[in-house]
Amino acid sequence: MSEPTSDIAIARRASKRPITEIAARLAIPAEAVIPYGRDKAKIDVGFLRGLADRPSGRLILVTAINPTPAGEGKTTTTVGLGDGLNAIGKRAAICLREPSLGPCFGQKGGAAGGGHAQVVPMEDINLHFTGDFHAITTAHNLLAAMIDNHLHWGNALGLDPRRIVWRRVVDMNDRALRDIVQSLGGPANGLPRESGFDITVASEIMAIVCLAADLEDLEARLGRIVVGYRPDKSRVYARDLKADGAMAVLLKDAMLPNLVQTLENNPAFVHGGPFANIAHGCNSVVATRAALRLADYVVTEAGFGADLGAEKFFDIKCRQAGLTPDATVIVATVRALKMNGGVAKADLGREDVAAVARGAVNLQRHIGNCQSFGVPVIVAINHFGTDTDAEIAAVRAAAEEAGVEAVLCRHWAQGSAGILELAEKVAALADGGTARFKPIYADETSLLGKIETVVKDIYHGVAVTAEPAVLRELESFERDGYGHLPVCMAKTQYSFSTDPGRLGAPSDHVVHVRQVRLAAGAGYVVAICGDILTMPGLPRHPAAEAIRLNEEGLVEGLF
Amino acid sequence: MSEPTSDIAIARRASKRPITEIAARLAIPAEAVIPYGRDKAKIDVGFLRGLADRPSGRLILVTAINPTPAGEGKTTTTVGLGDGLNAIGKRAAICLREPSLGPCFGQKGGAAGGGHAQVVPMEDINLHFTGDFHAITTAHNLLAAMIDNHLHWGNALGLDPRRIVWRRVVDMNDRALRDIVQSLGGPANGLPRESGFDITVASEIMAIVCLAADLEDLEARLGRIVVGYRPDKSRVYARDLKADGAMAVLLKDAMLPNLVQTLENNPAFVHGGPFANIAHGCNSVVATRAALRLADYVVTEAGFGADLGAEKFFDIKCRQAGLTPDATVIVATVRALKMNGGVAKADLGREDVAAVARGAVNLQRHIGNCQSFGVPVIVAINHFGTDTDAEIAAVRAAAEEAGVEAVLCRHWAQGSAGILELAEKVAALADGGTARFKPIYADETSLLGKIETVVKDIYHGVAVTAEPAVLRELESFERDGYGHLPVCMAKTQYSFSTDPGRLGAPSDHVVHVRQVRLAAGAGYVVAICGDILTMPGLPRHPAAEAIRLNEEGLVEGLF
Repeated sequence: MSEPTSDIAIARRASKRPITEIAARLAIPAEAVIPYGRDKAKIDVGFLRGLADRPSGRLILVTAINPTPAGEGKTTTTVGLGDGLNAIGKRAAICLREPSLGPCFGQKGGAAGGGHAQVVPMEDINLHFTGDFHAITTAHNLLAAMIDNHLHWGNALGLDPRRIVWRRVVDMNDRALRDIVQSLGGPANGLPRESGFDITVASEIMAIVCLAADLEDLEARLGRIVVGYRPDKSRVYARDLKADGAMAVLLKDAMLPNLVQTLENNPAFVHGGPFANIAHGCNSVVATRAALRLADYVVTEAGFGADLGAEKFFDIKCRQAGLTPDATVIVATVRALKMNGGVAKADLGREDVAAVARGAVNLQRHIGNCQSFGVPVIVAINHFGTDTDAEIAAVRAAAEEAGVEAVLCRHWAQGSAGILELAEKVAALADGGTARFKPIYADETSLLGKIETVVKDIYHGVAVTAEPAVLRELESFERDGYGHLPVCMAKTQYSFSTDPGRLGAPSDHVVHVRQVRLAAGAGYVVAICGDILTMPGLPRHPAAEAIRLNEEGLVEGLF
Repeated sequence: MSEPTSDIAIARRASKRPITEIAARLAIPAEAVIPYGRDKAKIDVGFLRGLADRPSGRLILVTAINPTPAGEGKTTTTVGLGDGLNAIGKRAAICLREPSLGPCFGQKGGAAGGGHAQVVPMEDINLHFTGDFHAITTAHNLLAAMIDNHLHWGNALGLDPRRIVWRRVVDMNDRALRDIVQSLGGPANGLPRESGFDITVASEIMAIVCLAADLEDLEARLGRIVVGYRPDKSRVYARDLKADGAMAVLLKDAMLPNLVQTLENNPAFVHGGPFANIAHGCNSVVATRAALRLADYVVTEAGFGADLGAEKFFDIKCRQAGLTPDATVIVATVRALKMNGGVAKADLGREDVAAVARGAVNLQRHIGNCQSFGVPVIVAINHFGTDTDAEIAAVRAAAEEAGVEAVLCRHWAQGSAGILELAEKVAALADGGTARFKPIYADETSLLGKIETVVKDIYHGVAVTAEPAVLRELESFERDGYGHLPVCMAKTQYSFSTDPGRLGAPSDHVVHVRQVRLAAGAGYVVAICGDILTMPGLPRHPAAEAIRLNEEGLVEGLF
């Protein structure tokens, strides 16, 4: 029998252990494990409460250079590093985001790692999993239904039907729902108005579930959601509609972290999955906190490249949750650096050391950025078969030039055996006590000042511009007591600038803030810079066309 | 401590047993039990396959008189009878439908029985349960997204955008989505057209999941769904869009029956929940078949009154699945018969024997109708505290006049102890071998002939009318090979006629067929008679406003 090479074939060969056994590795007792099938579980809320006073393990962030079509392997490296730490005898847990169901049927395929560094059961994780996203979809749409119902029955709160900002969501790539006119068909169907749907991962409720400390905080945050405005511009909140309690009920199980395992039977919490542009792009605070109390090392990832993902991890998640990361791993690949150096995707197979060196400015900038948060950095070179020794040496040299070490990792092909060196060095870095974590701006900085700080210090742009209306809105947020919130930057993931075509490390760009939105429940102000799509579409030939059950009842085509 | 009286308070006092123990009562081995938490489970598909050759237990249908605002207690009686059969030493299982999540937040509250005859965990069953409805919602909306995506990318199949019949669904009461214009906002968002959303229980996929024999049949049925028409009126199917495989993948777990328990720790399969108007209103064939192989007696229910529910149970579910019911229980209450006899809801507390006698014509007609399917009938009088002896005697007399026995049941207040007599008599009836089940019309009867048979023999109407366009459509269904399908009548549940205000037993009514729809995947032709709402709205003060988690983390306000 030949060695399987596709992710799904490797995942199917996994020898999974019962999930209670995985939990026991973190000393989670069986009675705190709520099973969802035999290989998925949620952790009981009572047990989680009891963890609060335990000492915290080391927190390790895995982030990456700007994503390219070549692929970087951030999730794969997060899983591989977790396995590697366990392989060198450390008690380590992994914290990942849950993949969105919608994109699975588009072109993305699954998102549970790859090769020999995956979390399983990968089909379940990529499909309904434990139902968290469905619960979020339902809670979101309950609020929407209650808003339109309120308008229908006389609008006692005096909402301006033209200024309702709460849309609906569906966990599906469905461009047809981006812009709709609803409540047509006569008086029995309510008040006609324009609206639309976003994908579930773009829901503010997804961000709320991921940032809430517990059920009480969840309900309070849900109540703070801004649903719309009155004609005098005063805000109407979800709590004004008495929707917060019922939403919290719908979300009570979704708040419990999900436990699964890696191919090497190490524990992985896969919980929450907010967008990394319109939202903060990290797994849940509840899962990260629990993992830190249960393991000595916790490896987690943040969405997209470090300019978006790491910045929000530090400035939003760590700030809100009081987390203090101990080390940062930046994932880079030779292929992606070559693209940053100007090579087209079709030409990535040819050795091009000069292009690697040119593209490495992207890596170097991310290194400096992450260091500016006071957290020590190491680079993981995620190995591809086509990489040459000279190209790898060029990455190492670029990292050293920036003052950090780069370690070659072969976890995709070899599992933990291919990432032992990185594991040793990351553990040493995290244990070294050199981290002095500090968000890049203070709570007291003005909202515009926060945006300017990110643009100048992280994106290395020259200036921020915004329409007067945007500036007035920021002022109104501050006047109404939201000035202390962090900002959540929504911009393209492909570039430090707002132009997805500008790879490398541009330094002369102006960042234009098109729109700002108060996410009072999530607890941040979104600054939208450029075109951000909150509802993807399907390609001409969606992956769904090839997805089916085979004769053995196994899922085909998900990868 | 005082005796709890609300359903939720009683449910919370339940001493639940581990679900593997409940499964063991049906000799389901632990390895075939897929846990969802500790008190819910799905049954493994491999185990289900192995049951096919086992002998079948007795199948008992619980149906009712036409529903009134007074409440009849069909689900409560189904649960109570199952407990009663177990209490007299019979191995009995219960088969129920899953409640819809949407109406919980409207005014309906939960739907898992009542009093001391409930299935638990009632909060879970009424909320996300094991995710079946979310899976159905997702599969339904994937097909919708693929249709609009197909139009967007050039419409190679030549669909007429004005004649797309597949809408979207959401498990929410949301009148604002009944009629929408979608795909607005420019070319990137697709081709603007009119459409809308139904509630998930009205999805054809819900009916398909409930009627499919296995995964293979499921995929074939999904492929047969008609999504729309070409300008030449030829049909386009889901399989033409290659959506059938991916939908089957999304539904593979939803096809597995869910096992829970009654308050008395007896096994109950709660699986599937199609509308009883636009669809056939019965729990899944997969669950019913499994239960029949695992228990000696299976008690199941059908939606609404016997004119809709029992007729479709017999003519659609039993016909398609080859089931042969052994006994029928018709549930009646003194209160509901009084309403049928002309008493207003506010006056139900006063004794009115004459009104009971007048209203009993409704019960008598249902008795005769059910007998006409060749299945022996018994009446269960579901006791309310305000019933007087004389009123109960009037119900008994009416049943006897129709040739069957009526048994007083106090399961709501007493659990199985209150329904032992009915249990003994139902077991004897089912064991008696008198059933000679036969659907009321043959496959070979024309579609219009089938509609006429139901209208004349079940509704006791004088005639069927229909627009020429409807008649032409029925002819086209027959021409294209769908003439053998049963019909699924969609009419008001409140009356034998199409006028919800005509209670009792009208006999002079004409039934007008407003529209017919081919549900080729479900395997029936829907005949819509009167106004049928496939998307409910919320009331002025939705139940959601009072639903919340209390200090102990328990759900308040669901009932």
